[in-house]
Amino acid sequence: MNFKVPKGTQDILPGQSEKWQYVERVIRDLCEKYRYNEIRTPMFESTELFQRGVGDTTDIVQKEMYTFTDKGNRSLTLRPEGTASAVRAYVEHKMFGQADQPVKLYYTGPMFRYERQQAGRYRQFVQFGVEAIGSADPAIDAEVMALAMDVYTTLGLSDLKLVINSLGDKDTRDAHRSALIEHFTPVVGELCSDCQSRLEKNPLRILDCKVDAKHPAMATAPALTNYLTDSSAEYFTKVKQYLDVLGISYEVDPNLVRGLDYYNHTAFEIMITGEGFGSITTLCGGGRYNGLVEDIGGPESPGIGFALSIERLLLALEAKNIELATGNNLEMYVVAMGEEAKLKAVELVSSFRAKGISADMDYLDRKMKAQMKAADRANAKFVIVLGESELEEQAVNVKTMETGDQTKVEFGQLVQYVLENK
Amino acid sequence: MNFKVPKGTQDILPGQSEKWQYVERVIRDLCEKYRYNEIRTPMFESTELFQRGVGDTTDIVQKEMYTFTDKGNRSLTLRPEGTASAVRAYVEHKMFGQADQPVKLYYTGPMFRYERQQAGRYRQFVQFGVEAIGSADPAIDAEVMALAMDVYTTLGLSDLKLVINSLGDKDTRDAHRSALIEHFTPVVGELCSDCQSRLEKNPLRILDCKVDAKHPAMATAPALTNYLTDSSAEYFTKVKQYLDVLGISYEVDPNLVRGLDYYNHTAFEIMITGEGFGSITTLCGGGRYNGLVEDIGGPESPGIGFALSIERLLLALEAKNIELATGNNLEMYVVAMGEEAKLKAVELVSSFRAKGISADMDYLDRKMKAQMKAADRANAKFVIVLGESELEEQAVNVKTMETGDQTKVEFGQLVQYVLENK
Repeated sequence: MNFKVPKGTQDILPGQSEKWQYVERVIRDLCEKYRYNEIRTPMFESTELFQRGVGDTTDIVQKEMYTFTDKGNRSLTLRPEGTASAVRAYVEHKMFGQADQPVKLYYTGPMFRYERQQAGRYRQFVQFGVEAIGSADPAIDAEVMALAMDVYTTLGLSDLKLVINSLGDKDTRDAHRSALIEHFTPVVGELCSDCQSRLEKNPLRILDCKVDAKHPAMATAPALTNYLTDSSAEYFTKVKQYLDVLGISYEVDPNLVRGLDYYNHTAFEIMITGEGFGSITTLCGGGRYNGLVEDIGGPESPGIGFALSIERLLLALEAKNIELATGNNLEMYVVAMGEEAKLKAVELVSSFRAKGISADMDYLDRKMKAQMKAADRANAKFVIVLGESELEEQAVNVKTMETGDQTKVEFGQLVQYVLENK
Repeated sequence: MNFKVPKGTQDILPGQSEKWQYVERVIRDLCEKYRYNEIRTPMFESTELFQRGVGDTTDIVQKEMYTFTDKGNRSLTLRPEGTASAVRAYVEHKMFGQADQPVKLYYTGPMFRYERQQAGRYRQFVQFGVEAIGSADPAIDAEVMALAMDVYTTLGLSDLKLVINSLGDKDTRDAHRSALIEHFTPVVGELCSDCQSRLEKNPLRILDCKVDAKHPAMATAPALTNYLTDSSAEYFTKVKQYLDVLGISYEVDPNLVRGLDYYNHTAFEIMITGEGFGSITTLCGGGRYNGLVEDIGGPESPGIGFALSIERLLLALEAKNIELATGNNLEMYVVAMGEEAKLKAVELVSSFRAKGISADMDYLDRKMKAQMKAADRANAKFVIVLGESELEEQAVNVKTMETGDQTKVEFGQLVQYVLENK
């Protein structure tokens, strides 16, 4: 029998998991500073939630969902993204009734999409995302973008580019939609079959088709920006003004649409430039989703959020040779020779741990030399060797591995000694 | 449209999620001291892994798994527990070849079992577990139990009881199995249908049947302890000796079997006693699983581990009125009156956050009084109010909310002032 991790998923092993912990710690600390609080929603939701919340015409819903029926005959789907669940929770728990709006939430955890395998893309991947629900203030759009940027810069990344666009309001999109249909209708026969069905259902989606990206009609397609209503344009101006105040530089890309149906007004992506990324240059995407809360059964509550992949973040750090300070060295290794000494070792290791000192010992009854090697591999700061004479004396030499210095310390003083010298 | 969290699952909302973070931090710190490293495996595995690794005759595999077929026609199952996945990873990544054995792993994350709903039981629940694979040293059994106990005591719980038993080795279990079949055969007609089929397949399982718990034959069933081989008995004696050295008291319960097929030698549970628990008294369970690594396709590698439910841990803390120190108060709230002041507020909030100060502001263009109330609700330590005159002066009164004291500080000195006085 030869069991493997399911295709498209990965194990995160010791050596890697410390990096994940480090990044998550940075994210939690940042969220605390920005006052975003964590929400944890289940790994699966009713399938209908994603059909409604992510959008029936998206690739995610049409092609990529892990949908199954539970023993109670419910159609459930492993969550492909985090916004629909957060909004569902906002509505279900009546958070719209809280005195303080927007409700600022963050989440981090696995998402699931059945995608074709390629480097840096997994079928189970981890997203960190935030949602600020309950305010249509352009200042909160800027805050959300600032937080996303802060994650990367705090971890030491540079060469970042914030790309923004406005998708306008409903009037904007209706006008643009008509213009797109008019533009693409004459060439629809030259487009892929997906785009042919998109033309009537959701022509905006044509603009981010990977198959037709090089078709000449793409470059000349009418830009949404030209159809912005006055109030949408004013909103966008304010967003840019707040970004200026925050000292965050950005680029306006009128072709930036996002792969989800629910966005309007502000849409943004954070890209990384430079060597070593292959096709993966977009690190983070987000935008405003006024109307989504109502679609999911709540009262009118405008929202904005983003999501970023931790896997891509770690790839970016690696490509830029940024080492995270995940130091996790052992403080004390206790070598024991003989059965009596081993009992004492168990007791001492426990007494170190009880005072916050990381400590370990051998569990294979290995010879002294092998135990010393294990202490070396563990990068132990101190080592003690317990044998008959140490038990008799009730004292042991504490060896500082870096210097080779030895100090004789009574058993009763060992914890204190390590605490003072570690 | 009225979307709800799927039956048997729950959202963990702000106010609760801080407790989860706190418990997870304690767990990570303890694991670091004990030198267990984190492993993260996917939420689902091939169904066969659990059939093999958890056991075909268990309730989990027979009744409770979320099994589905992916778009590539693979039978996958949401993981019902963590050991099978950890062992699969140990084998797949050839960790048995590492110089240091046992490989000490821990995990924390969602598990999935389709169970009948009852208080404290969820279909998606979170387990923390550890696995020490690659050593058959009774001292590691004691270490694993010490770590489990340490989680509870570090969080302030008392009234804990460690219950242990030895399930012996293969010879022990074969002899015991024959005795059980002999014992239950005369009364098999009086047992539930599950137990009737257990009699031949896995008679040990009869002993933890909830339906037949009161049947008189249960109390007189032959105890496994009486069939321990000499080497099993010696192993168990050593485990108890190490627990004594560690100062951990325990109770031997010869009827303790565990709900999983793979255990042998040491089995243990941690119970909590006292008021307020209803039927939930077992907090943690674990045991030794020599043979499991081979079952899953690896070389002979003995292992031991435990798993505990974070939900139950939190219930226990609540029942014992233990408050976790999840303090997460805001340091600075910036009140802004007017459009110009708001631009400045955005800038100042950002400058506080950049220096590690948690800061927030209003995003609803509320009146000053409402903004002050929001600052109060957020329990802000400091508040500043920006209006026209402050912008002119480039200075603002910093109010310490607790005392009401005000100090005028120049904009350029604000961050410094808060850092020095927070």
